[in-house]
Amino acid sequence: MHFPGMPAPLARVVEMFSTLPGVGPKTAMRLGLNLLTRPAGDAAALATALQLLHEQVGFCECCGCFAEQGHCHFCDDPLRDAATLCVVEQPVDVLMMERGHGYRGCYHVLLGRLSPVDGIGPEQLRFAALDRRLAAGGIDEMILATSATVDGEATAHYLANRYRDAGITVSRISRGVPEGGELEYLDEHTLSRAVDQRVAWQRRAGV
Amino acid sequence: MHFPGMPAPLARVVEMFSTLPGVGPKTAMRLGLNLLTRPAGDAAALATALQLLHEQVGFCECCGCFAEQGHCHFCDDPLRDAATLCVVEQPVDVLMMERGHGYRGCYHVLLGRLSPVDGIGPEQLRFAALDRRLAAGGIDEMILATSATVDGEATAHYLANRYRDAGITVSRISRGVPEGGELEYLDEHTLSRAVDQRVAWQRRAGV
Repeated sequence: MHFPGMPAPLARVVEMFSTLPGVGPKTAMRLGLNLLTRPAGDAAALATALQLLHEQVGFCECCGCFAEQGHCHFCDDPLRDAATLCVVEQPVDVLMMERGHGYRGCYHVLLGRLSPVDGIGPEQLRFAALDRRLAAGGIDEMILATSATVDGEATAHYLANRYRDAGITVSRISRGVPEGGELEYLDEHTLSRAVDQRVAWQRRAGV
Repeated sequence: MHFPGMPAPLARVVEMFSTLPGVGPKTAMRLGLNLLTRPAGDAAALATALQLLHEQVGFCECCGCFAEQGHCHFCDDPLRDAATLCVVEQPVDVLMMERGHGYRGCYHVLLGRLSPVDGIGPEQLRFAALDRRLAAGGIDEMILATSATVDGEATAHYLANRYRDAGITVSRISRGVPEGGELEYLDEHTLSRAVDQRVAWQRRAGV
């Protein structure tokens, strides 16, 4: 999107913004203009925050979660249940899990999922680190929380197979109707799986 | 939007992003995570561009357009027609006008529009600078390109009245059906104005 007479410093900001996901040229322009018309301190504060982002945030060597200055929020926490390990694809998945407030175990982030088409095999993911954690002992259950996509499901099956003889319980997060979901708007695969994996609430006498 | 375990530097970026127009907490999170998972140079480049935005972009003292280091793209251009002045509300309106490629005159940016409700009267806008430009002479026509809102229309009427005796032509940008507009989807005000302000294409003989 070219605007004749647009100052180059504004054009650079707009160009950078438009590389972000879901931000088209028009939105990028609106964001750039917004920062230009607000007090100079606002753009400077965002600039500083962005500068520090990569300097201060890394990945935990043990679990692969986001880590600030080497310290991971979860591996360091003595109140978390170290015997339960939830395996996810990305650090953001950990943040999503934590929003639920229910899970109190530890995590292992693969930093991706198996995808032969994209050349991503076990070597490209954090399986070696997972092997070491299991070999170190103390883990009773591994919860497979990879995504409910074809690749995510394949990754879960690979994990179950890889640790078949590790002497641990391996479980997969349930599939079904999402909270608040109305049957009218569900896709047929979700609905048929929800019926297949129905949970018994009462059993008739004698069964 | 609170994510337990989210590193503070990421939270700061997300918080800053969510102050931008049209960016909610979820979008801000997506933007922050995107920059965190991309090469560090990308966030740094955006940081630098933002840092330079206010340092390098200001407003032209003469016309009020965006100006880089005091120089305005339009006032400095000898090829622009200095006898025609287009009055707009904001610097961004100038960029929009220039996208059309048709206008070759100069601009005057009011930096707002009259809005008694918000306490914005003639003193708060760049009318004094406009008085000086007209007093300096050489201007034949003033095109009122304020917005087609109640306040924009009031500002246009105020301008027409203020320069009634300035010995210049005062014109207002036309109103009507936008390019590509289908009558089915137009509001009734636009359509009735388009009929009122219809343009004669042929006149019957004798009229």
